[in-house]
Amino acid sequence: MNQDAKVTAPTRVLRVALLGCGTVGRQVAGTLLDKAEDLAAKAGCHLELIGIAVRNVNKPREGIPPELLTDDAAGLVANGGADIVIELIGGIDPPRELIVSAITHGASVVTANKALLAAHGEEIYAAAEKNRVDIYFEAAVAGAIPIVRPLRESLVGDEIRSVMGIVNGTTNYILDKMTNDHQDFEEALATAQQLGYAEQDPTADVEGYDAAAKAAILAGLAFHSPVSGSDVFREGITSVSTADIEAARASDCVVKLLAIAKIDEHDRISVRVHPAMVPYSHPLAMVNGPYNAIFVEAANAGRLMFMGPGAGGSPTASAVTGDLVTVARNRMRGVVGPAHSVYQAHQLAPMGETRTRYYVRFRVADQSGVLASVASLLAKHHVSVHSIRQTPIEDGREAASARVSMMTHEAQESDMMVCLEELEKSDYVLGSVRLMRAEGA
Amino acid sequence: MNQDAKVTAPTRVLRVALLGCGTVGRQVAGTLLDKAEDLAAKAGCHLELIGIAVRNVNKPREGIPPELLTDDAAGLVANGGADIVIELIGGIDPPRELIVSAITHGASVVTANKALLAAHGEEIYAAAEKNRVDIYFEAAVAGAIPIVRPLRESLVGDEIRSVMGIVNGTTNYILDKMTNDHQDFEEALATAQQLGYAEQDPTADVEGYDAAAKAAILAGLAFHSPVSGSDVFREGITSVSTADIEAARASDCVVKLLAIAKIDEHDRISVRVHPAMVPYSHPLAMVNGPYNAIFVEAANAGRLMFMGPGAGGSPTASAVTGDLVTVARNRMRGVVGPAHSVYQAHQLAPMGETRTRYYVRFRVADQSGVLASVASLLAKHHVSVHSIRQTPIEDGREAASARVSMMTHEAQESDMMVCLEELEKSDYVLGSVRLMRAEGA
Repeated sequence: MNQDAKVTAPTRVLRVALLGCGTVGRQVAGTLLDKAEDLAAKAGCHLELIGIAVRNVNKPREGIPPELLTDDAAGLVANGGADIVIELIGGIDPPRELIVSAITHGASVVTANKALLAAHGEEIYAAAEKNRVDIYFEAAVAGAIPIVRPLRESLVGDEIRSVMGIVNGTTNYILDKMTNDHQDFEEALATAQQLGYAEQDPTADVEGYDAAAKAAILAGLAFHSPVSGSDVFREGITSVSTADIEAARASDCVVKLLAIAKIDEHDRISVRVHPAMVPYSHPLAMVNGPYNAIFVEAANAGRLMFMGPGAGGSPTASAVTGDLVTVARNRMRGVVGPAHSVYQAHQLAPMGETRTRYYVRFRVADQSGVLASVASLLAKHHVSVHSIRQTPIEDGREAASARVSMMTHEAQESDMMVCLEELEKSDYVLGSVRLMRAEGA
Repeated sequence: MNQDAKVTAPTRVLRVALLGCGTVGRQVAGTLLDKAEDLAAKAGCHLELIGIAVRNVNKPREGIPPELLTDDAAGLVANGGADIVIELIGGIDPPRELIVSAITHGASVVTANKALLAAHGEEIYAAAEKNRVDIYFEAAVAGAIPIVRPLRESLVGDEIRSVMGIVNGTTNYILDKMTNDHQDFEEALATAQQLGYAEQDPTADVEGYDAAAKAAILAGLAFHSPVSGSDVFREGITSVSTADIEAARASDCVVKLLAIAKIDEHDRISVRVHPAMVPYSHPLAMVNGPYNAIFVEAANAGRLMFMGPGAGGSPTASAVTGDLVTVARNRMRGVVGPAHSVYQAHQLAPMGETRTRYYVRFRVADQSGVLASVASLLAKHHVSVHSIRQTPIEDGREAASARVSMMTHEAQESDMMVCLEELEKSDYVLGSVRLMRAEGA
């Protein structure tokens, strides 16, 4: 193949600057250095790695010529004359200034930085459009799963109704452990940390911040509207109990942390991240371990699902390299790819006005009329019950009590929250009421 | 949204000619006529439908202005001054001449014609490259599942090892019926025909011709090499028996018609379509009914799966419209999309040299030494056994007999075929030997 590549090897050169040299950065650098001819055959030009910005230039890095390393990222971007800048540092600062600087210096940008795009995407997309350069970020959402091009190009002629995804492998692994190995959250988290699936500080994953950033990017792409991470309702998995997992199992469901973006009946975007009960019959239910999946419903295309590894050095490097080749091709032809379109500018729906189904579980004093009271309380707030189960609790106490669990029809979040409050205040409900949203029915 | 579209409505116009006005054609025409402003906002130009070539111009077509209809497809393509030609007639002729004519007249082409691309793709891709126009065909493979862009662009920086797909909804539906409703092939086919999932002449589907065409297109895309439908080893599902389905079930597998393209250890492409046993644990096993799915393994990205409706008017129209907008954007910018690259030019591996696992089932005279004979026969031809089961058959006859079923390790097709022949010739094997390939372990 190298021979073929040699034959077709083009003479034009594009200069590539790499910011960051961690797991992903090393692999991307390795591809640029070791697979130059294959890359050239694919991109239609030579991609010359002109420099790698790192924190510590003295740290030995196998296979990387030391002369490529610099600790002056800003200088590399501003004075390196790069055609393409690949940002793999992560976090908001300094990447934000570096990317804007790259763009204003006329370089196209490839990044995997979901946090930055979710927080300052509009600023960056606008700068790229103003300067007529590319900003590509396939690696920022669901690792190597090709989702940005499908949403931006393949489905551009269609009308996307909803995007629902498992976009965080760490939480998906933890919930799997709780489901299959009956571990509680703390045990499962510890296991994930031992295996390197979870950070020592797991907050960004388990509290749903990472998923919320991806949800914002997906919503923006799907609905051609500006959506930022702070627009996303967010609830993590730290409060998911083994009882929740068992309750889901009893209803032929699994608990998944979902990132959901939908167009509501008022043509507004509802975007949220929370644990949800998903029926076994739904394709997302079988997405296990560190895998990610994105489930898309479109007016004409129908239901589509994209599945793959959600993280990891190699998958992320694959997505970055794919973007690199595309950006290089665009640059060789003197064009930019489809811009980040926000022409639809949908409003955002407040969480209180979001509609979904709810699974509710609580304990009641086993006395006549309780179910009637529950039903009328719900009815008063426009929440109708789909199915309800009451099972007596034999715990040898004097006062008999019972466990009530029910699934509602689609209801409005604010109505459900009022019901929750009133149920907990009522004299027949003992203790707290557990609520979990249900999706994918 | 229309208002937004109006605001951004551009003034440039591209002329679109539509060839064919069946289920898909009507929907695409409807989008061009009724959603002109939304399309314009997406494409960055007005898309003017200048004509629709049909067989019978007098047949009334709701919502289609009669003056747009013509029965002179060749004239519309040659003299209409179209910027973009959408071919939805299907079949080899006349689409082949019409598409080549469109290309030589400088028009970009969008088509859903898998049969044509599998038979004459190289000629058409070459003509498009020579004339610097686009040829897009997302709808030709797996309906609305975005797979062409992911293979051509998202994964271009990676190295694809294999593509394995359920790409024919009709056969998938029939095999489902056989598996879940215990129907035999004839019953299941009849059911599919009643529901319109199968044609009255089901040959193209059940004999695997449709899947083979898609396999050729997928292999060409994945491995940047010319592959035609005639290069694909093809075996349909007409010989799949209820006994095969039950045997698969007994091994925790389902029977699926798979389109498989792999790079072998000699860097050659092995491409084939045949029924295969797939373990329940494999993502492809849960792709039910008329759904399609494509499972991709890449060196860095790892295992990816794309799932969605494989056929139908709306999904196909969605894919065609997505291509239309992309082609229009390219044309507005005076560029063409990534060409159909064949720079790797891999050789094709003969089927006899393909390696996979085999499930083999036959009946033997229940006499001592039979298993030893079977084992040594296989060993002689380099086929090693992974697991074997022998169960006595109580059919009240004098001579006891037993059913032998086994799964081999990966073996070479030609070796396995010799074993098959020798087993059937042997004196201890009663009747014929049933063989099924096994994938996805």
